[in-house]
Amino acid sequence: MQFSASQIALLINGKVEGDAQATVGSFGKIEEAKAGQLAFLANPKYEDHLYTTSASIVIINENLELRQPVRAALIRVPDAYTAFATLLSKYQELKTQQLVGRQEPVYVADSAKIGDQVFLGAFVYIGENVVIGNNVKIFPNSFIGNNVRIGDNTIIHAGVKIYHDCQLGKNINVHAGTVIGSDGFGFAPQADGSFKKVPQIGNVIVEDYVEIGANATIDRATIGSTIIRSGAKLDNLIQVAHNVEVGNNTVIAAQAGVSGSTKIGNNVMIGGQAGIVGHISIADGTKINAQSGVSKSIKQPNTAVTGSPAFDYTSALRSQALSRNLPDLEKRLKELEQLVKQLLAERVNL
Amino acid sequence: MQFSASQIALLINGKVEGDAQATVGSFGKIEEAKAGQLAFLANPKYEDHLYTTSASIVIINENLELRQPVRAALIRVPDAYTAFATLLSKYQELKTQQLVGRQEPVYVADSAKIGDQVFLGAFVYIGENVVIGNNVKIFPNSFIGNNVRIGDNTIIHAGVKIYHDCQLGKNINVHAGTVIGSDGFGFAPQADGSFKKVPQIGNVIVEDYVEIGANATIDRATIGSTIIRSGAKLDNLIQVAHNVEVGNNTVIAAQAGVSGSTKIGNNVMIGGQAGIVGHISIADGTKINAQSGVSKSIKQPNTAVTGSPAFDYTSALRSQALSRNLPDLEKRLKELEQLVKQLLAERVNL
Amino acid sequence: MQFSASQIALLINGKVEGDAQATVGSFGKIEEAKAGQLAFLANPKYEDHLYTTSASIVIINENLELRQPVRAALIRVPDAYTAFATLLSKYQELKTQQLVGRQEPVYVADSAKIGDQVFLGAFVYIGENVVIGNNVKIFPNSFIGNNVRIGDNTIIHAGVKIYHDCQLGKNINVHAGTVIGSDGFGFAPQADGSFKKVPQIGNVIVEDYVEIGANATIDRATIGSTIIRSGAKLDNLIQVAHNVEVGNNTVIAAQAGVSGSTKIGNNVMIGGQAGIVGHISIADGTKINAQSGVSKSIKQPNTAVTGSPAFDYTSALRSQALSRNLPDLEKRLKELEQLVKQLLAERVNL
Repeated sequence: MQFSASQIALLINGKVEGDAQATVGSFGKIEEAKAGQLAFLANPKYEDHLYTTSASIVIINENLELRQPVRAALIRVPDAYTAFATLLSKYQELKTQQLVGRQEPVYVADSAKIGDQVFLGAFVYIGENVVIGNNVKIFPNSFIGNNVRIGDNTIIHAGVKIYHDCQLGKNINVHAGTVIGSDGFGFAPQADGSFKKVPQIGNVIVEDYVEIGANATIDRATIGSTIIRSGAKLDNLIQVAHNVEVGNNTVIAAQAGVSGSTKIGNNVMIGGQAGIVGHISIADGTKINAQSGVSKSIKQPNTAVTGSPAFDYTSALRSQALSRNLPDLEKRLKELEQLVKQLLAERVNL
Repeated sequence: MQFSASQIALLINGKVEGDAQATVGSFGKIEEAKAGQLAFLANPKYEDHLYTTSASIVIINENLELRQPVRAALIRVPDAYTAFATLLSKYQELKTQQLVGRQEPVYVADSAKIGDQVFLGAFVYIGENVVIGNNVKIFPNSFIGNNVRIGDNTIIHAGVKIYHDCQLGKNINVHAGTVIGSDGFGFAPQADGSFKKVPQIGNVIVEDYVEIGANATIDRATIGSTIIRSGAKLDNLIQVAHNVEVGNNTVIAAQAGVSGSTKIGNNVMIGGQAGIVGHISIADGTKINAQSGVSKSIKQPNTAVTGSPAFDYTSALRSQALSRNLPDLEKRLKELEQLVKQLLAERVNL
Repeated sequence: MQFSASQIALLINGKVEGDAQATVGSFGKIEEAKAGQLAFLANPKYEDHLYTTSASIVIINENLELRQPVRAALIRVPDAYTAFATLLSKYQELKTQQLVGRQEPVYVADSAKIGDQVFLGAFVYIGENVVIGNNVKIFPNSFIGNNVRIGDNTIIHAGVKIYHDCQLGKNINVHAGTVIGSDGFGFAPQADGSFKKVPQIGNVIVEDYVEIGANATIDRATIGSTIIRSGAKLDNLIQVAHNVEVGNNTVIAAQAGVSGSTKIGNNVMIGGQAGIVGHISIADGTKINAQSGVSKSIKQPNTAVTGSPAFDYTSALRSQALSRNLPDLEKRLKELEQLVKQLLAERVNL
């Protein structure tokens, strides 16, 4: 792909100085860039490179005053660094969009329905009766089980495993190694101390605009559905157990876990390594601190909690501070005991 | 597969009403089902559908009194919902059992021995001298290293990685993305601050009827074996370090971790996100609460512990409650200090 | 491969007794070994087998006094068990080194550059412009994204996923299922409560001699690089967020997590399931206890901390002990209150 200075200026709201028809096809650092490449200058410390670079186009800060003539076409923006990052990001999106077709070998069941502009990376497995929307990109080594549905524009990164019957919406991002739809952890204790597996015949529903990090696990429901609502963002290595519901725009940080059948409201923030027991509900807007252990339902919206077991944030902090000062507290108690003992002794002497 | 009403009734201990020879080949919701499908009616709210459904067979509660004639064959059971779920589960088991053969491409070393009725999904890798029993099902994208043995009826889900020399028994279920037999975390500190890897030349032995969740990790022993005993149930994202032994029918919930060389007894319950240090032993029947940190051996069977560091459950709960009330405790202490100060002052005045 | 007794003696610093030209090609237990196999005898309890074994070579302790003539060639060493383990480990290394070539099918982009003596297991994916050094071994089902660079002698185990643009050095070991370079967890809150993804356009740099366990996740930087410095050792299921830097020879145990932009010094030890918040720095030589939650920078080198929130190890232990004794503390307080109340009452009566 080739872009002209004027096209790029349009993308980043910049102003061209010099040859608006100059074109580039790739990126380079200002000190190494060659003709046909785009570079940027953000740190004034490196201004000298601007006058010697071979880059065809350079993005610079709008307030930079040139000390010499510059060979490259310039694009002036308020913040060259941010503009360059934005451009790189748009470029990557564009490249992902251009991924289309199949890298052989792939395994696609005859009964699967694949939309337009879909990318199937090498060693991707598509099971029976799978339905994949338009513009979906599935990276190599991923497994899509029977009857799974995936909506338009969703991206499945490398090595993701989605079990049979799960449903993913549109514009979802699932990162590498994540497992969706594994069996819920349900076992009925038997008289002899062994456990009998409770069949897990539900599924997982992931709604639109959800992002799920790498190596996370979301179990299928025993019966019914484990649900991740629209706009929720889940980080790496998180565990969502069977029949859990995660609300709209709820954010769960890395290594946190939610036990079975718990219902988490909308716009909840759950810190890293936090744990939530099963069969409770968490009100909208709740903030759960990292490493907290939530053992009871939180009914009041917008509550903040911390600790394990978790309770109200402000008083928990105060308790934690006092807990740290327990040696001091104990010393004060001991002194009092001495004094009272003395008073008692004196009283007897009266 | 086609099943008659009488066959189905046999499977779920039901009683046929109507045409016992009616046959079905798939499932449907009562309001959407077509001829040749099986449906169920559990909620009396939806009874109307029973009189209009096109389903060929409907499972209903035994106490339901019909208000109109029904076209479909009926199967009466104590609880239609449970019966339907049981049936669905048996159907899925049957379908898994029917998975047989290889989905090309697979990679199977010439020296591997594969039993009867085995399923190898696409992109499965089977290394040298691997021995796989009868009726084993290995889902796509899984890796079975050299010399691994897998017993009859074991199911390996998608993208599982089993390193060389590990041994799995019969009737095991390993969920997607789990790693068995990775190197134990052993490094010898060197004089210059760097670490030298201690070779990990043992293996992992998983006994019969074990279930292991998704994206879990079980390290191979330094020398000898890391062992998961018969009937143990391990949830998602759990970590079992080198040379650990997990006892019979022990249950470990999601994201818990067991450090190296620790021996866990039989029928132990370990809560989610709990951690257990290395080189200790945990008595049979111990209950370890979620997020606990066990730092010492537990010698008394059937002990319950909680907290980090973990101690006796009942007193830990009492300490936790008091810890939460520390601000109150401190206030009482301060008041006492005032009173005693006053008493002391008065004494001087005497 | 065939080895003579004198070659093996050289490898393990042993002394041959008997036929130095005796050769073996594999290992066996002393009681089962056949001609052409190597066995060892460490436990004197099994000495009888030494006189009946068919093994061609047996490793024994140097102080063992023979009661009968032995057919096998003997190699005497200070500790037969350790010597055998060392040998097994060297043998495995050798076998890994001998893995060379491609197990078809693999997917290798035309623009990729692959070094000498490289092994690509079946179903390995190598993206565009990837550069792979000499003697690199990539096990089956792994994904190497576009523009990734991997240095000499690095081993990538089965099912590893490395995203585009990441750079791995030499002599690195990455265990199965690990993800390197997934998007950092960055989302900008919007006015309507939803979140907008912040593009993650940086990469991950892993320096030489690093070991990373199984199913770990290391996110790419937002801009710039997430860096794992030379000699660091990371265990299974650990999470390293975007823009984190992990210092030289730092050790992170299983299931620990480091939040975004935190900088961890050299020779730091982080216990299992510990968590570290974002945007702080941890001094060289810090020791962080298992399950700790570090919420503030640690500036003093070689500090030891524990607890959540974490503070100084020694005083934390004292506070924890007192915390456990809170019921006792409260009892003492109550007694004092009674006594003071009594004193006050008496005073009034004076």
